[in-house]
Amino acid sequence: MIRKAADRTSEVREAMRGGEGSVEIRHFFKRDEWNANTRLCAELILPPGASIGSHQHLREDEVYIITSGSGLIDDGSGEERVSMGDAILTGNGETHTIRNDGNEPLSLIAVIVMYGE
Amino acid sequence: MIRKAADRTSEVREAMRGGEGSVEIRHFFKRDEWNANTRLCAELILPPGASIGSHQHLREDEVYIITSGSGLIDDGSGEERVSMGDAILTGNGETHTIRNDGNEPLSLIAVIVMYGE
Repeated sequence: MIRKAADRTSEVREAMRGGEGSVEIRHFFKRDEWNANTRLCAELILPPGASIGSHQHLREDEVYIITSGSGLIDDGSGEERVSMGDAILTGNGETHTIRNDGNEPLSLIAVIVMYGE
Repeated sequence: MIRKAADRTSEVREAMRGGEGSVEIRHFFKRDEWNANTRLCAELILPPGASIGSHQHLREDEVYIITSGSGLIDDGSGEERVSMGDAILTGNGETHTIRNDGNEPLSLIAVIVMYGE
């Protein structure tokens, strides 16, 4: 199943997970398009100043892969700068937060895989 | 867990799945770093002329997300051009193949999620 970039559905979340500003979510494939236990597969775009607040992942793993821009991630061990090609894996009850402290949009690919029963 | 781009492990596969040339695989997180049922999470780089041969995904889904360059994908319904921001989801016994027919490297993010028992 091919999903052209222009055919993605998009939504904007304000104060995502208690963060600042708005985050655009461009879905590649939604949960009901997967056979596997995947509930998010999307590009997330954080304009300058935007953030996703701290949140926990229980019984699921989320990977962020930074595709453009730069920002600060905190996975519980302090803020660390991330930029293109860096990745963050969070799961098993861990928390994370990310914010764009730069002047360019921060784009990342996010995939959430839930654990089986 | 943060994986900086420079700290990724990399491998080169010749004639991957029976394809042409070589494909570089830069792993973000390997199977044993996930709690979820994920066996590949990597950037794949196909130089001009390279391809990944046709192969089937049984009891797992694979998503390709094109991050740069352009190529031709065939998921069983004929070749279709894909470029940055396009995505392909293949699973449940389906097959796919991809080749770089352009002059620039073709890069994509690949994630394979296995089905539960």
